[in-house]
Amino acid sequence: MTNAIITLTTDYGTNDHLVGTLKGVILKVNPDVTIVDITHNVTPFDLLDGALAVGSTYAYFPPKTIHVVVVDPGVGTERRPLLVSAANQYFVAPDNGVLSVIYEREQENMVVRHANAEHYYLQPVSKTFHGRDIFAPVAAWLSKGWQTASMGDEIQDFKRFAIPRPKEADGVVKGVVLRADAFGNLITNFRTEDLPASAVSAGTIKLQAGNQPITRLVDTFARGNNVEAIAYMGSSGYLEIGVNKGNAARTLGLGRGTAVILSK
Amino acid sequence: MTNAIITLTTDYGTNDHLVGTLKGVILKVNPDVTIVDITHNVTPFDLLDGALAVGSTYAYFPPKTIHVVVVDPGVGTERRPLLVSAANQYFVAPDNGVLSVIYEREQENMVVRHANAEHYYLQPVSKTFHGRDIFAPVAAWLSKGWQTASMGDEIQDFKRFAIPRPKEADGVVKGVVLRADAFGNLITNFRTEDLPASAVSAGTIKLQAGNQPITRLVDTFARGNNVEAIAYMGSSGYLEIGVNKGNAARTLGLGRGTAVILSK
Amino acid sequence: MTNAIITLTTDYGTNDHLVGTLKGVILKVNPDVTIVDITHNVTPFDLLDGALAVGSTYAYFPPKTIHVVVVDPGVGTERRPLLVSAANQYFVAPDNGVLSVIYEREQENMVVRHANAEHYYLQPVSKTFHGRDIFAPVAAWLSKGWQTASMGDEIQDFKRFAIPRPKEADGVVKGVVLRADAFGNLITNFRTEDLPASAVSAGTIKLQAGNQPITRLVDTFARGNNVEAIAYMGSSGYLEIGVNKGNAARTLGLGRGTAVILSK
Repeated sequence: MTNAIITLTTDYGTNDHLVGTLKGVILKVNPDVTIVDITHNVTPFDLLDGALAVGSTYAYFPPKTIHVVVVDPGVGTERRPLLVSAANQYFVAPDNGVLSVIYEREQENMVVRHANAEHYYLQPVSKTFHGRDIFAPVAAWLSKGWQTASMGDEIQDFKRFAIPRPKEADGVVKGVVLRADAFGNLITNFRTEDLPASAVSAGTIKLQAGNQPITRLVDTFARGNNVEAIAYMGSSGYLEIGVNKGNAARTLGLGRGTAVILSK
Repeated sequence: MTNAIITLTTDYGTNDHLVGTLKGVILKVNPDVTIVDITHNVTPFDLLDGALAVGSTYAYFPPKTIHVVVVDPGVGTERRPLLVSAANQYFVAPDNGVLSVIYEREQENMVVRHANAEHYYLQPVSKTFHGRDIFAPVAAWLSKGWQTASMGDEIQDFKRFAIPRPKEADGVVKGVVLRADAFGNLITNFRTEDLPASAVSAGTIKLQAGNQPITRLVDTFARGNNVEAIAYMGSSGYLEIGVNKGNAARTLGLGRGTAVILSK
Repeated sequence: MTNAIITLTTDYGTNDHLVGTLKGVILKVNPDVTIVDITHNVTPFDLLDGALAVGSTYAYFPPKTIHVVVVDPGVGTERRPLLVSAANQYFVAPDNGVLSVIYEREQENMVVRHANAEHYYLQPVSKTFHGRDIFAPVAAWLSKGWQTASMGDEIQDFKRFAIPRPKEADGVVKGVVLRADAFGNLITNFRTEDLPASAVSAGTIKLQAGNQPITRLVDTFARGNNVEAIAYMGSSGYLEIGVNKGNAARTLGLGRGTAVILSK
């Protein structure tokens, strides 16, 4: 029989024992699980960044994968731990909106539970490391028994936030840079359906990111001349701004939150 | 049958092929082992940092886990490679004190061996990469046969150092910051038993870290107001100093080695 | 039966979901594979750096290991994806020379294929993330069936570049720093056979790296006094320049591309 898969997405960084400790806790409950790191470099305490990380990757995993997502500024307070069943997979995370991309995309067939069956927790539960004491063991026990109903009661009033969407105003469409990736590419919140068909086919676009105009729309980085900022549809379905073999974020001095304006 | 688990704690960083090479060596001996990274970002050559990393995590792993710890400024000299049996687990590391937390906590039931059975080594043994040539293959062969006695002779004169403990003097207790974690939280060497019961229950504390006074003792980060430095018992059992949703190390300009003074 | 092993060497960094997504794609095809990260911190777009990373580690892995190497500035252009059989292992990478170390060392028994059997790709294939859409699934399908011939036609005209070698001129031998490792050690392109036997045995060497003279040849770091720059044969078979418990790259202000001159 194939091993269960548990993925980890956190803001713990990799300088510490924290991630290793999560893995120990999981393997102590279920030594036959395959653990996969998505990233541990979510911007600390940044729920949108965490939501985008897990939202960009879960669909590529097999059915029954369990995704543990720990970006948890409210650890130790009354915020609830959740177990979400959606898209034929599972998500274990704090109730703070970090699963908002999942909620948005999978709302049709989704069950959200308050994972309050405390006999699954690692005792005593600390006030500051619920990744170790709650989220990891809940995921590990789930991977052994697959009994979601025993892990907590279904709830409806979980927290969610809206992923920012481009908006039409004053004859233009106003979007934003969601994040910069490892290459410095600026990932905007424009999706294919937000772009006028004319722009996409003609290879030109009228875009302004901060004070920087971008006019060339290409199919891949390598079409750009060095230094030149170019736009292309990225692999996650968002319009991106990059520089061929360069770092657009650094070159242009732009990053998360920069306004992006599309003229039609 | 469940796979053996080997964990890795090193100062190799992750920019190189070094960690990947360790894993290749292990998998070539025993392809059925599960390898877990604790961290590869131990401060280079820093034995205390390495000791704290493995010391904070081993207890969360299943019995028979093998922990490889390579912080090894004396590689290629006469310092010995060790195989330590303790706490129902195994530790493979150079004889330079990097296992001092284990020695301190597990001294009751501990066997320390000089891992000098050279037929387990990868030949020829280099002078500069014993992680690859000695520690990884010793751990891998151990995970196949579990024959510790065949791997070397028991010794008593292994090197150890004392983890710094707070000391009473002049009516105060003097401690130190052991390290800053990924969030910038300052981990001191005060444990619960070093704190006066009155302070813990009242929610206040008289602490001075460098020139910075800290007066609020809370149960978790989220109780702090922004910017305010707060103290709380961390998840590893040490008193920590943090800033809610902030980075205390950066905000306060403090870090490893900063003196921390507790007034009673 | 033992699990297949797939290693990953990329310039994706670890701040993103990218590496996690590759792993999901692989596990969805073959959930029983063992995935090993070599490094994801190859200098972005740097083919020599990628070539050295995989070239330094593959020999330590078991037979049939599949190495996925994605440093791919030409993604989405006409550059071909390759599947190379060599050294009883497999390599999946773009046709841009990133496997040049393999080509150089294993030319005797090597088959290079254009991995153009598109039914193995993840559809639709993006223009910017062939790691996800081509290289990962090709490796994963290979790990299930081991049918290299079905994955594409053999080719001869693959791209390669020469790893820079030291050259004699004007009575000296001129080499170069290939890279700095995580400790700041400067890895030159001098191999044992490039060094005069007299120098190696006598413990002295006449080396100049940039403006920095190095005169002591030792067997391991720990023989150096602090601050002193020393030379030693590194674990990958290249002459290295280091500082005991220090960071030579930072101390000396040298790095990749620095000229290194050996006087005989």
